[in-house]
Amino acid sequence: MAPWHTVDGGDPSVGTLRKMRWGPKTIRDGVLERSFHVESSDRDVPGLLWSPLEATGPRPLVLVGHGASGSKRESYVLALGTELARRRGFAVAAIDGPVHGDRRSDGGSVPGLVLLEFSQLWAGDPDMTDRMLADWTATLDALQDLDEVGPGPVGFWGLSMGTILGLPFVAADPRIEVAVLGLMGLTGPSRERIALDAPRVRCPVLFFLQWDDELFDRPSAAALFGLLGATDKRLHAHPGRHGQVPDEAFVASAAFLARYLAGGVG
Amino acid sequence: MAPWHTVDGGDPSVGTLRKMRWGPKTIRDGVLERSFHVESSDRDVPGLLWSPLEATGPRPLVLVGHGASGSKRESYVLALGTELARRRGFAVAAIDGPVHGDRRSDGGSVPGLVLLEFSQLWAGDPDMTDRMLADWTATLDALQDLDEVGPGPVGFWGLSMGTILGLPFVAADPRIEVAVLGLMGLTGPSRERIALDAPRVRCPVLFFLQWDDELFDRPSAAALFGLLGATDKRLHAHPGRHGQVPDEAFVASAAFLARYLAGGVG
Repeated sequence: MAPWHTVDGGDPSVGTLRKMRWGPKTIRDGVLERSFHVESSDRDVPGLLWSPLEATGPRPLVLVGHGASGSKRESYVLALGTELARRRGFAVAAIDGPVHGDRRSDGGSVPGLVLLEFSQLWAGDPDMTDRMLADWTATLDALQDLDEVGPGPVGFWGLSMGTILGLPFVAADPRIEVAVLGLMGLTGPSRERIALDAPRVRCPVLFFLQWDDELFDRPSAAALFGLLGATDKRLHAHPGRHGQVPDEAFVASAAFLARYLAGGVG
Repeated sequence: MAPWHTVDGGDPSVGTLRKMRWGPKTIRDGVLERSFHVESSDRDVPGLLWSPLEATGPRPLVLVGHGASGSKRESYVLALGTELARRRGFAVAAIDGPVHGDRRSDGGSVPGLVLLEFSQLWAGDPDMTDRMLADWTATLDALQDLDEVGPGPVGFWGLSMGTILGLPFVAADPRIEVAVLGLMGLTGPSRERIALDAPRVRCPVLFFLQWDDELFDRPSAAALFGLLGATDKRLHAHPGRHGQVPDEAFVASAAFLARYLAGGVG
């Protein structure tokens, strides 16, 4: 495994991502967890990669986008990463969102402050989505150059902010063959962008909705699901507020991703 | 196995169901399929029972209600029955709905005529729901007296007319521990009854909705899901019209029923 990795291309206007640098690694729940950074001229994208111990050769890769105020170390991110690596043999990677996690000097230790800053960025910086799209693209480019990932099929999982910033990536990158999205609606500062990109999402989608979501109302979430361009899509709704996604949704997520990606296990 | 079975009770105003009579049996997809009739003073309820070959002792029982114009021999009813019996070891039973299947002299050979007559009955006979509830209750009573069914846990599966006539049964009978419902909304002639019974459904529910349902519009279906009294409930929506329920829904149905009932396999 090369400690440095060169990524070509990228849109200079949003920063050209060039290099991958490895940080500490550890064993978590029986799988290898490696910290990495994808570097560009103007920013550093911190990520985590989970893969089976002793993995060699190509395998499915799932990219996981966390929700607002969280990070790549959220408990559900860790659970998805270790579950899919251990039980399915997949590689799974997560990166911190803008102003989240290790993109901050405080590491995101005050979630309320992170949420505040993200909300301001969402409302005030129309380039935020494109920068995150470039970060996801560069991360995927870099990971696919690893022997233990390679050109295997790619899935995306991201709810709430994971959809706000991930749906445009799923819409733009034809390498993504399956996506889990949701907990978001056709609302908020980037709703016009989301409305443009949703019909471009053509891969199979599992979309989650919280029935009593206090942040994204049911009609706006249903409207977003309706707009998705995928013909192979389904919506799973569960009772409860925005943060009360049940375990069942994570079980369904893993099964859904595996159903579409497992044919590609090397 | 006794050829006759005596069922106590029942509401005389809707006919007291008293006896169970066995008809032909066969092997279908590796499971035993037995035809039966539950008899009452004024009607005869035709049913089918699927169970593992050589089954003895109590086991979970799933009752399946078919949709309007169909019968207990609908392909999806047969598939659920044989699948749950073969793979899970469950017993599964289905009965013909009012003016459906073998309740008719023509056996239901003209689906359009069956649908017409059912629609008229739904609109014109306020006792239809209670009669079917009595039929389901008597069927369950009779089946639980069989050695190979016994007092095991009970699940219910019924979409569309299966919900119209099955939801009141699920609401009324505490033996039912899990239900799959849907493809129906707070609309139609029995909507007031459904609205009264829905909050009384307390067992875990999986509810299906077809996104482009031309018979039950999305808001009315969502309203019915919202009214269900179960705290453990989820809605799965799939694209397509009323009749286009995908295979995925049947796979999810079997897994959901098994998840709640499998602990009771004797």
